[in-house]
Amino acid sequence: MSKTLDFYFEYSSPYGYFASTGIEALAARHDLTIRWHPILLGPMFKAMGSAPLVNIPLKGEYSRRDFQRTAKLFGIPYTHPDPFPIATVSAARATLYAREQHPEKLATLVGKLYAGFFAQGRAINETSVVLDICAESGLNRSAAESALAEDSLKALLKSEVDHALSQGVFGSPFLIIDNEPFWGFDRFDHIEKWLQTTARPST
Amino acid sequence: MSKTLDFYFEYSSPYGYFASTGIEALAARHDLTIRWHPILLGPMFKAMGSAPLVNIPLKGEYSRRDFQRTAKLFGIPYTHPDPFPIATVSAARATLYAREQHPEKLATLVGKLYAGFFAQGRAINETSVVLDICAESGLNRSAAESALAEDSLKALLKSEVDHALSQGVFGSPFLIIDNEPFWGFDRFDHIEKWLQTTARPST
Repeated sequence: MSKTLDFYFEYSSPYGYFASTGIEALAARHDLTIRWHPILLGPMFKAMGSAPLVNIPLKGEYSRRDFQRTAKLFGIPYTHPDPFPIATVSAARATLYAREQHPEKLATLVGKLYAGFFAQGRAINETSVVLDICAESGLNRSAAESALAEDSLKALLKSEVDHALSQGVFGSPFLIIDNEPFWGFDRFDHIEKWLQTTARPST
Repeated sequence: MSKTLDFYFEYSSPYGYFASTGIEALAARHDLTIRWHPILLGPMFKAMGSAPLVNIPLKGEYSRRDFQRTAKLFGIPYTHPDPFPIATVSAARATLYAREQHPEKLATLVGKLYAGFFAQGRAINETSVVLDICAESGLNRSAAESALAEDSLKALLKSEVDHALSQGVFGSPFLIIDNEPFWGFDRFDHIEKWLQTTARPST
């Protein structure tokens, strides 16, 4: 029986981007069904009394270096965006629109939005750029534009973020497999080990 | 030519403990000379406006789970201590004493202090327990006791922490190899990849 992998990610998160480049291979290796959850980290930072990584003294400087180095070590295209971080409401809403209405385009859209921001320097904080990327992902641009203006989609994103918080999600990427939470791209190897442990028959 | 590996660690840090169990093997694999730096994270938290991991909403709960799981996945003995976190001034000072006066006992002492706290439930916040562990590590208990009371050792710890901060150290474990900073036990595999990259001759 296929287990589910709940994948929570914020578009302004480099580690979320790195995770997105490997999530489908991870799921395929272990017969996991991905459920995609674009979130906004603002409410999480508020709950923790925290801030975006790059704005924290000491840790901020280190993290800028770690973004670049991690990308290089894992062979992932990366050009640190400027400005950074950005507002990702439109990108998250567009992703929910694809998830609900055109799930077959969803993974493509996520990949193109992330690569647009972190590899191609595209301003995915702008709705027009998000809509361009929707079109490049095979969605109808004007249908997406109408959807993004609807209150129901705004409400869906809000409820997704609230639900994520209620599940203990506080960062990006955040993965939950079989109630087991994993935070960070650097937990991918822990996930592999953990899945091997739990898959082992208890004879 | 042997490179140096500056290893910064706080005794109340589970990830510092995990790192300590693998640091000598890492150094041996890559012909690195370890320089041991026991630090206190208090001043780092102050600089970042942060707090001990377990005291942060959401992240705290997750981290308690991640400590246990990481230990299990890597086969490291672990019983989450109570109370936690603790004050580690005596343990850090004793470590500096060993480093300056009896460097041949240093790695043993670090291992026994960490295992005492995280595997055997010993109260290494208490000076008497630290001195017991000094003795078990081959140091003279009363000589260590005298040293711990000296102002020069207190000043040395303070200057170590100040120096660490000036190097951008903000967490535990924190490793610097050839000016390249790595934060976290989960950067061990990045270090391996990074060393392979930099070791490659540029022909």
